Formats: sequence, structure tokens, C-alpha cells
Amino acid sequence: MVKRLIYLDNSATTRQYDQVTAEMVRVMEDDYGNPSSLHRLGLSAEKLVRQARNEIARSIGVDEEEIFITSGGTESDNAAILGMAFSRRRSGNKIITSKIEHPAVLESCKRLERDGYQVVYLDVDKNGIVLIDQLKREIDHETILISIMHVNNEIGTIQPIEEIYRIKEEWNKANDSDIILHVDAVQSYGKLNLCGLHAELISLSGHKVHGPKGIGALYIKKGVRLDPIILGGGQEKGQRSGTENVPAIAGFGIAASIINKDQGKACKRIKSMKENLIYKISHEINNIKINGNYGDWNSNAPDANESNVSDACCSKIDLGLTSPSILNVSFLGVRGEVLLHSLEQEGIYVSTGSACSSNKKGQSHVLKEIGLNNMEIEGAIRFSLSEFNTQEDIDYTVDKLVTIIKKMRKLSSFR
Amino acid sequence: MVKRLIYLDNSATTRQYDQVTAEMVRVMEDDYGNPSSLHRLGLSAEKLVRQARNEIARSIGVDEEEIFITSGGTESDNAAILGMAFSRRRSGNKIITSKIEHPAVLESCKRLERDGYQVVYLDVDKNGIVLIDQLKREIDHETILISIMHVNNEIGTIQPIEEIYRIKEEWNKANDSDIILHVDAVQSYGKLNLCGLHAELISLSGHKVHGPKGIGALYIKKGVRLDPIILGGGQEKGQRSGTENVPAIAGFGIAASIINKDQGKACKRIKSMKENLIYKISHEINNIKINGNYGDWNSNAPDANESNVSDACCSKIDLGLTSPSILNVSFLGVRGEVLLHSLEQEGIYVSTGSACSSNKKGQSHVLKEIGLNNMEIEGAIRFSLSEFNTQEDIDYTVDKLVTIIKKMRKLSSFR
Repeated sequence: MVKRLIYLDNSATTRQYDQVTAEMVRVMEDDYGNPSSLHRLGLSAEKLVRQARNEIARSIGVDEEEIFITSGGTESDNAAILGMAFSRRRSGNKIITSKIEHPAVLESCKRLERDGYQVVYLDVDKNGIVLIDQLKREIDHETILISIMHVNNEIGTIQPIEEIYRIKEEWNKANDSDIILHVDAVQSYGKLNLCGLHAELISLSGHKVHGPKGIGALYIKKGVRLDPIILGGGQEKGQRSGTENVPAIAGFGIAASIINKDQGKACKRIKSMKENLIYKISHEINNIKINGNYGDWNSNAPDANESNVSDACCSKIDLGLTSPSILNVSFLGVRGEVLLHSLEQEGIYVSTGSACSSNKKGQSHVLKEIGLNNMEIEGAIRFSLSEFNTQEDIDYTVDKLVTIIKKMRKLSSFR
Repeated sequence: MVKRLIYLDNSATTRQYDQVTAEMVRVMEDDYGNPSSLHRLGLSAEKLVRQARNEIARSIGVDEEEIFITSGGTESDNAAILGMAFSRRRSGNKIITSKIEHPAVLESCKRLERDGYQVVYLDVDKNGIVLIDQLKREIDHETILISIMHVNNEIGTIQPIEEIYRIKEEWNKANDSDIILHVDAVQSYGKLNLCGLHAELISLSGHKVHGPKGIGALYIKKGVRLDPIILGGGQEKGQRSGTENVPAIAGFGIAASIINKDQGKACKRIKSMKENLIYKISHEINNIKINGNYGDWNSNAPDANESNVSDACCSKIDLGLTSPSILNVSFLGVRGEVLLHSLEQEGIYVSTGSACSSNKKGQSHVLKEIGLNNMEIEGAIRFSLSEFNTQEDIDYTVDKLVTIIKKMRKLSSFR
């Protein structure tokens, strides 16, 4: 009997589309030239890079000259933040970000602090939304860059990027200033429509959208200049040196082309699975807390001592404020890591927090910042869906969850 | 009729081993987890990375904890030079390198100059060897790093790394100093035995040894500390953040395992093909100049006006001083780029210089530094061999070369 495999850790990484793998194999076998070579194999490789760049550009509604290939989301974030800080060091030394950013952003900011820059880490509310009033107060003449993620990788909260952009644009106009907005869109790419998203810098990653690992992109709005952080042969118009990873770029292009064709449909399916998951969990398991931005849900949610939620309460959940692919739930009285391994025994793969840090221990900084208590943090599980999942996967998962949690709570004598 | 394809541009990039591609496909399809995930798919991915690291470490005779994965040779060079300079900025501000390094090294050094470091670019002699006396004079109390490539990517000259290491070690001992030697071994890896190569930092690349593109490694000797240049989740023990490119790492591991098993045999074959190529070119085409370090060859070589070389002269060529895989020849009175495209018509792929710069125009800085005149630079072609080539490839190539060059020289009325 083939063991069931229900992969619900798609925010950590995804399985590639078969079309992506097939194209990569074709390139690795036949089109293995170096784009810098003058002969046909070089030109052919160069053409593949151009085609992929075009698809990636289309997938976020920008010009292809504005897309720069990197080795992944982390490098894109580093390139945006360090590159902008270095190139603007004469204009100002202040960077504004939030306390729940990805480590690629937070660690870049810490490096800049070491180098004499001032970094402000904005607080977030209990739903994970950055405090807009605090942002308004912090923007000043020293500010060169604001870096806010689009969708949080642990709880899925969508940040009000449009509002943030508007605020900084108003400041720019009133003060003849040129503050730049960087958006880490690694978790929203492929799940939300990024066309029209207002930002001068946008980070993307291949492997979160069924594309290859080791490849990403940075959108740099025409006219914005960054110091490159990887130097050498001058590839990517000098913005990112190193022989182009052509098979992965071509694969990323295929993934982007699928986003361009099918994103709407796939996301609808994912959202409907999340609805099913949230409905079933809320109804079949008591003493839970759903983390993220769900409108009135959290203020009306039953507390840990209540037995079960009502349909009326569940209907208050606004699914439009959080990513359709991420559901973070605290199962009170349960240790997330133990639950994870118990689910694994049933062929279900989830995550306790983000997989973005190689340090597998330690409490999530995101769950702390939204004000969860220790029990809520300890019992948190992230389900992250993809179009490869099915409603049957969800049903099976909740069935197993119910049984496991009942058993675990009994053992720990959780009331 | 299938068109012949003789790929002699292996210093630009190589075709992957089929075993590498097969393993990458397996990982992409079945082992697609994120090594930071706690479940089985994560652990399995982590294990793949560990196995690959072990093979890469063995291929240069070091411990696996000393191998750090990067996105390629360029990033490895940047990580070594920028990382060392940043971490040692209090110890000194001088870096010594050479004028014929790869752009990944030269551009990193230029960035450091901009940031207030002093960089000395050593001259080379007509064979491409760095001037050791100049190095000795330049080492001083401000020096923190020496960066010299092992094999030059354009002419194949092998640098006297052992001597350079000895000189800096003697200085270190006499002055209670701690100067570090970085060696860009991207072009020597897989062609020369690197086990026992003395250096604290060694850059490697996957795609020059029939491994994947977009992956490389930096050897960091135990106890040496570098500031990381890509920051985030703390992967690679904090030395290189970002989700590990597991399929490419596994593929690189396979390529390294093939080096571990078969390097000696493969290199013998490559060397014998180069001998054949050099012998045939020297005997069948007059007015050539072989660029690189070939012992007495250059001083005894026939000049541009002599008709042909003698066997006696050819026997003076010492093939042990230059990479077995690289042969750089100036065909006088011929434009390299035109020759390249004429060879391409016959299915033969070569290079005019390096493919390491995306700027395809412009004269080679390496050929200028070894003192070639304009005609010699203009007529230069790099043949770079791999174990996938055959002696028949070489015979066919020289046949075509003879015909094409005769025709081209006739058209340009070259005497």
C-alpha cells in the first residue's frame, strides 16, 4: 500500500510543477550553454533567460527590464535592503520595517544597524497588522527605505501595502523626498494578484510557487538604483553577477507562465480548501485560536474554556484579510512539535512555525509579537496549502487532527 | 543527419553528467522538502545536503564542516573577499590580488577600494605568473588577505599557490600576523588535484565540473571567521542564509563523487587530447602564438613571420604548468570572433576569451596583462576541453581550423 502523503507545508517550499522539471531537464541536457558565450548555445541560453524574465514580469504586471534574477527570496531581500542603504548612504540613514518580517529582512537590518544606520521596527496589532500611526510618526527626513512584507509567512496576514505606499508618497510629495518602499512578496506571489501592487522594490522566490529552488527575482522600478551586493562579470545589467542559472531561470519562467494562465482558478480552489479546513477545525475541535487577521473573529472567538464554536461565530471570519494558502491555529494544551510528528505518522506534513529559519528551536517571533501567550505559541501549527492539495486531503487531515488532539489532551490532562 | 556538436567551451560551462540530472529530477520529484522543516521530508532533504557536503569536502581533501554552500563561484569569491575584509576591518585594510583575476575577485576588490580599503593588484609575467618578488614587497602589517586564482580561466596558467602560501606563512610567523590566503579554484577544480592545496579559503563552482549551475562552495578553514554577505534564516551555520537549493546541492554532490572516483583517469584523457590539439595546431597552422605558461615554448616559439614550427620546438612545451583543459591560441591575422562563428558553422563551439563577463565586447584584461599585442589579442581563441570530448573531436576541429584560417588569411591578405 502506498502511504498517503498530504503535504501542507507549502509555505516552506513546494513540489515543482512537472512542466518545470521537464523544462529544466531539457535545458540541462540540450541548452546548457553560458549566456555570455558568443556561439549558438550561448545565444540560446540568453534567449531562455529573456523569455523567463518576460513571464516573471508579466506575472506581477511590470516591464521585463525591471526584473532582476537572484538566487532566491533571501538574496532578493538582502539586495533590496543592503543595496538601497549602500546606494543612499548620503541621503539618509534610517530604515523602517516591522517586527514580524522574514529573517532575511530583519538580519539585513541588523547588519545595517551595526554599520551605523538607524532601523525602526514597527509593532503590529493582535492580527499582525503593522501600526500605521507609528509608521506615520516615524517617517522623517533621514528615512530612505520602508520594508514591509506583503503576506506574513507564519500567520498569513496581508499588510496594507497600498496604504503604506500612499502614506510614503504623500510624505515624498510634501517634502520633495524619495523614500522607497520594498515589499517582500515571497509568500503572496502566486496567491494574491500582485499586478498593480505599489512598491519600488518587490522580492519574489521560485520555490514557493512550484518553481525551482535557488532562484528568485527582485523587481526594481525603472529609475531606482541599487548598489549590487554580488559583484563580478556584470550579469543582470550589473545588478547581479555570476553565470546565470539557466535551467532554474527557465523553470521559474514556466512557473510564472502557469501563474499568468491559471492563478485565479488555482487560488479559488486553495481558498475553498482553507474555508473547509477552518470550518471543520472550528467545529470539530474546541479550545483553539486561529492566528492571523480574520476580522472580528478573534474578538468573538470562544476562549479556551468554551466547548465549541457556533456557526454564527464562524461566519464572522473574513477570509479576505489573510492569505488563502496559510492557516495558523493554536491547539491549546497540545505541543505543536508533538502534534506535527503525530500527523506525520498519518502522512500529513505541517509546520510549527516558519521553515525560514534553519534554527529549528526557539519560539516564533511573529506569534510573540501578535501577543500570544506561551500556551498559544506552544500549540501553534501552520497549515499551508497549494493547488496540489484536495478537499479529501483536508477532510482526512481534520479527521486525524480530532483523534490525535483528543488523545494528546487526555494524556496531558488538559481541560 | 544529426549535426555534429563539438563543445570546446567547457571553461564557460559544462554539460551536466546524466547522473547529476537524474539525481536532481529524483530530488525535485520526491525529496522536495525544505531542510528546515521538522518532518520527514525536511530531514530527508537535510540528509541529502549532508551527503553532498561530504562528497564535496572529500573532493578537495578537507572536513565537511569546512564546506559552505553558495549560489556559485562568483558568490564564493565575493563571500571570501568581502566577508574577510568586513570581519577584519580592525586588523588592517590592505588586500593583495593580481591583475588577471576573475571579475568576481576584481570587482569585489574595487568595491573594497571604494569603502576605504587599499588593494594592490600584482603584475604577471608573459606566461601569466604573478610576480612573486612584488608580492613579497607588498606584504605588510596592514595586509589581511591575499587572493590569487589557482588556474587562470582564459589562458590556463597555474599559479604557484604553494609558494605564495609559504611566503605569507613565513611572514605570519615572523610577525605574529594572520594574513589569509584565498584561492579561486573554480577552473582547477576537477582538473588538478586540490587535496593538500594550502589556502584558508577556496572557491569552487558546480557547473564547471559537469555539476549544476547556480551552486558552488566556499571552503573556510576551521577557525577562520568571515562576515556572511547574505543574511537571514541562518542556514549554513549562519554563513549563507536562504533555503538550501537541495536538488542542485545533491547534483553537485554527485559531480564531486565522480571527481572522487574518476578524476585521475578523466584528466589523463583530457591532457592527452590537449597534447594532440597543441601538436596538430602547431604543425598544421603557422603564425600562431600559444598563450599561457608552457616553459620555454614562448621564448623559442616561431614568430609571426616564420612558416611552421618544428617537432623539436614543440617538444619543449611543458604541459604541466598550465591547466590540462585550457588551450589559448592566437591565430595571427585572423579575427577571433569571426573564427569562432566560422567554427560554429561546423558544429564546433569555442570562445574568444572568457565567458565570465556578460560584457561580450571589449578586450581581454588577461591577454593585455601578459603583454600580447593587438593582433595577438584579436586572434585569440580559447579551446577548453572536458572528458566528454574525444580525440576525433580534436582531429576534426584542427581540420576545420586549417581550412577556415587559410581562407580567412587569404581574404585579409595576411602574409
